[in-house]
Amino acid sequence: MAGFNKVYNLFSNIKPTDRSLGNSTQEILDNLTKPKDSLGDLEEVVKKLASILGTPKPKISEKYVFVLAADHGIAEEKVSKYPQEVTYQMVFNFLNGKAAVNVLSRYVNADLYVVDMGVKHKFSKIKSYEKYKFLDRKISFGTKNFLKQRAMTLKQAKDSLLCGINLIEDIVLKRKRFSNATPIVAIGDMGIGNTTTAAAITAVITNCNVEDIVGYGTGIDELQYKNKIKIVRKVIKKYKFNLENPVDLISKIGGFEISAMVGIILACAYYRIPIVLDGFITTSAALIASCFNKYIKDYVFAGHLSYEKGHKLQLDYLGINPLLKLNMRLGEATGAVLSLGLIEASCKIVNEMATFEEAKVSKEIS
Amino acid sequence: MAGFNKVYNLFSNIKPTDRSLGNSTQEILDNLTKPKDSLGDLEEVVKKLASILGTPKPKISEKYVFVLAADHGIAEEKVSKYPQEVTYQMVFNFLNGKAAVNVLSRYVNADLYVVDMGVKHKFSKIKSYEKYKFLDRKISFGTKNFLKQRAMTLKQAKDSLLCGINLIEDIVLKRKRFSNATPIVAIGDMGIGNTTTAAAITAVITNCNVEDIVGYGTGIDELQYKNKIKIVRKVIKKYKFNLENPVDLISKIGGFEISAMVGIILACAYYRIPIVLDGFITTSAALIASCFNKYIKDYVFAGHLSYEKGHKLQLDYLGINPLLKLNMRLGEATGAVLSLGLIEASCKIVNEMATFEEAKVSKEIS
Repeated sequence: MAGFNKVYNLFSNIKPTDRSLGNSTQEILDNLTKPKDSLGDLEEVVKKLASILGTPKPKISEKYVFVLAADHGIAEEKVSKYPQEVTYQMVFNFLNGKAAVNVLSRYVNADLYVVDMGVKHKFSKIKSYEKYKFLDRKISFGTKNFLKQRAMTLKQAKDSLLCGINLIEDIVLKRKRFSNATPIVAIGDMGIGNTTTAAAITAVITNCNVEDIVGYGTGIDELQYKNKIKIVRKVIKKYKFNLENPVDLISKIGGFEISAMVGIILACAYYRIPIVLDGFITTSAALIASCFNKYIKDYVFAGHLSYEKGHKLQLDYLGINPLLKLNMRLGEATGAVLSLGLIEASCKIVNEMATFEEAKVSKEIS
Repeated sequence: MAGFNKVYNLFSNIKPTDRSLGNSTQEILDNLTKPKDSLGDLEEVVKKLASILGTPKPKISEKYVFVLAADHGIAEEKVSKYPQEVTYQMVFNFLNGKAAVNVLSRYVNADLYVVDMGVKHKFSKIKSYEKYKFLDRKISFGTKNFLKQRAMTLKQAKDSLLCGINLIEDIVLKRKRFSNATPIVAIGDMGIGNTTTAAAITAVITNCNVEDIVGYGTGIDELQYKNKIKIVRKVIKKYKFNLENPVDLISKIGGFEISAMVGIILACAYYRIPIVLDGFITTSAALIASCFNKYIKDYVFAGHLSYEKGHKLQLDYLGINPLLKLNMRLGEATGAVLSLGLIEASCKIVNEMATFEEAKVSKEIS
């Protein structure tokens, strides 16, 4: 694994995308046989893709889904409706192809990678699962309870960030060089307790009210909800944060899967690979990534608007609009994966439709 | 073509769907490895499908798209941004596979039928277009200008309604008998001037303010917009309407494509085939269908929420929630077709996910 200066090199070299390509795409769209702007958000999507990929008629040819799993020390504060062992049990479910994200990834024809970033379980016989790729990148058996101490060491924060970067370099870029394909990357999470972690991160970065950020996660009751708010309040008072030092922020209140996602987002932006967020957890990673470099939002799509309370606030802070609004709150990248169909469809539009001239259709009356 | 008593037989025999099947589906969903209700609107979709199809684990195996085209006499009042010949020009574009609905239908693997219900053009050499099926069901060369006289005769209203019913019987049901497949039907429109027709229909049926219903269609300017409102106001004052006589309503202010859609919706509900609406035009057809029988909403999905002003009001009146909210306003069934992916995905979820027991995942802590 390369040294951490690689991360600094990456984040300092992410440039804003070239909006003029989006304008070229708009010109193409305006000549296609449809009323101007009538494809609404799909037109915005394909313009953003054009700016990222450096071509006015973008195409997507490979879809990757990374589900990153890790456990959270904060889970011992009873912030979830589910016991902690559900994290590792769901990893097995992913590898057996029977979780929601498997079903949706098959449906949109995307390759699914399940990454153990720090699950509190020793996986064995993992080679027997071949259909859904398992990647062992375990940093540790879960973070510490950040109500009591730092979630992880600074070294662990850096290592997990680098892990995320290397996932993109070792898997996506390697295949891209071989196939000359145009990849898109969707990310998602699995980790009991991680909505509390994401809420703390969001509160620190956005500086919004904790009550507006904390949600019901997997469906906790009112008593647990009040306790969750209390915990997040305590946590953000306990530490000093400096948003110009996001590695330190991660080590204090991060999670291994969230840190890896930050690395993935930074690497995708650096290598100009479009990336699709899922819900509250992945967007908290995007918030951290935007502390490293403010241009990352140019490369990031919000697959959906989660039902989880604080998600809209996160997206507003980043300045990105969600594609789907289906009241989903499952995680695992399910919302991101479902949106891949819309993103791909937007590319088909700009590549396959006839112009007014080609189709001999009259233009508007001026 | 069978007599019109067939329509009366159909609409009087549409029963509400069996909600208990939706409850069975909910039980299945609640045992799958995900937090309760966490798939949001997708769960509502699959429950509704279950109730329509009479099985707790529904599957969709054939996707049909019908784009119905017709011209409107009201177009002579300059209510559109485009000249009337665009209607027939777009029919050729559909048959050449180069319009937005072609691109999206290919993407979701749906069969596209283009139906001439009353385009003001004599199509010839139409047999040379084989890829996208053309159906000649022309009632007349466009409706009359309903600002001056009835849009069509009562006989034409009945004939176009029957046409819609026969499309379902002759194409969808015939193949279903052969293939034993489970079809879903998406509908869309092409007809310069038809947002004015749909606005008049919507104003009469919902009794809402004309200003809240009339929209900018393909993108008219403020002057045209004010004129469009004036026209709709005049039209609804000109005639007497009786919502218990929807055939009369169609003959006064309908369109041939809208009337055929009413027939399609009634036939789908009668034969328990799920049907997906597109935007403002198709939903005006659903409003008329609901005058025939109030249970049709049990069989109808709203593929998307159109950017066209009055669409939300129409959907609220019917009591159905849209799936996609992408600010689209293209027509041609584009929003409906794009939503077919979500509807199909919801079926995959209930059929392919593991239960907590199967996956040995712990349930919530009680």
